[in-house]
Amino acid sequence: MTLDLCPSPALYPFYKKENDTVIVVDIFRASTTMCAMLQKGAKAIITVATTEAARQYKSDGFLVGAERNTRKCDFADFGNSPFDYSRELVQGKEIVFTTTNGTMAIEMGRNSRKLYIGAFSNIDALINRCMDDSERIVILCAGWNNRINMEDTLFGGAFAEKIPEMGVVTLGSDSIRIALELWQKAKNDPLAYLKQSDHYKRLINNGVESDAAFCLLHNTVSVVPEYNKTDKKIRASK
Amino acid sequence: MTLDLCPSPALYPFYKKENDTVIVVDIFRASTTMCAMLQKGAKAIITVATTEAARQYKSDGFLVGAERNTRKCDFADFGNSPFDYSRELVQGKEIVFTTTNGTMAIEMGRNSRKLYIGAFSNIDALINRCMDDSERIVILCAGWNNRINMEDTLFGGAFAEKIPEMGVVTLGSDSIRIALELWQKAKNDPLAYLKQSDHYKRLINNGVESDAAFCLLHNTVSVVPEYNKTDKKIRASK
Repeated sequence: MTLDLCPSPALYPFYKKENDTVIVVDIFRASTTMCAMLQKGAKAIITVATTEAARQYKSDGFLVGAERNTRKCDFADFGNSPFDYSRELVQGKEIVFTTTNGTMAIEMGRNSRKLYIGAFSNIDALINRCMDDSERIVILCAGWNNRINMEDTLFGGAFAEKIPEMGVVTLGSDSIRIALELWQKAKNDPLAYLKQSDHYKRLINNGVESDAAFCLLHNTVSVVPEYNKTDKKIRASK
Repeated sequence: MTLDLCPSPALYPFYKKENDTVIVVDIFRASTTMCAMLQKGAKAIITVATTEAARQYKSDGFLVGAERNTRKCDFADFGNSPFDYSRELVQGKEIVFTTTNGTMAIEMGRNSRKLYIGAFSNIDALINRCMDDSERIVILCAGWNNRINMEDTLFGGAFAEKIPEMGVVTLGSDSIRIALELWQKAKNDPLAYLKQSDHYKRLINNGVESDAAFCLLHNTVSVVPEYNKTDKKIRASK
């Protein structure tokens, strides 16, 4: 089995191979938040690219999570914090969700063999799920406006460190090696390590520092969100 | 002054700002080789994207350096090794040069305020040159078919470590921070560190291991190749 990392949605055409299992990662915070939604009982997530599309769903009676530049959109029911989604509000519901970068990454990876949503919060469940039948796993980092970021890269490194426990794994290119090297430097205290990073500063400036700490905790949920190519919805993988 | 790193030519549109000073880096081996050409007295370098264009120049009587997938093209006078270019052969001449990745990076960055070619071989000369008048420096990594690589990233880290000696520098985004972190792990023995990397393996497989060692030596030349927007040639910066 081969593991690789694509550091930006715009680069996926250059990393793509036949039969990829793609894991879309947007640690701060979209992928962590999608895991939280399904863990709290949401029936499905419908991702949309634009706030206009999200607003239309809202007027059609859907629950909507929407964020732009780290802030909840005014018209939305929820923002992009995993704490926004309580069981009372989301149980059994379909949630429409749009975020700055996560949606773009899903769009790039949606024709892969399988597409999962990954986060530190579901890392072990995710590894178990991928190891079932994947030939090549590509961690597709959402980044920030197609620029690479530290937190998604670190997730790739953590994944690369854990996965050899499950079988023989080849690192597919320099990008996953760089991620592993970075993780080995950061892993004793990822939160402190990330205090220099771009997005951590953005989160602080928007008063959601506690979200950052939560987004770095391992295995707080057991669900693996999976994208369905037919109806384009994301549900807990069975 | 701000320093940033763009890890792939395809991502430069997302890193680009007004008035960038761009440094194109292709450590293994195009940027090191271009430095060698000018240091050995070549008058100018004409970079071309395709082997067809290079072949046409050859039939027009030009000296031509051409490489594809780490190997010298049959029709060319030189390949992509810095050792191919002796003073006897290149002094006073214009050299036509095409490589797998370096040409693409130059193409992406050619509308910047200034475009220099950087390598470990000219790192100090390059820093002196950039510090004269740059507001923002972007190290544009050539990578490999738009995938990121370790050696170009390490150069970015080495540059970021050295440049604060010259003045106050802000790291522009996570990519240059990642590069600096990586360099700090690698710097005691970059050659050993790179033995796991994709391109090092390619060089070994093509019998040019000694080139890799040379490409990691600091300050073996004093020239700074500079791209001229008007005639699209690269000459030693005055």
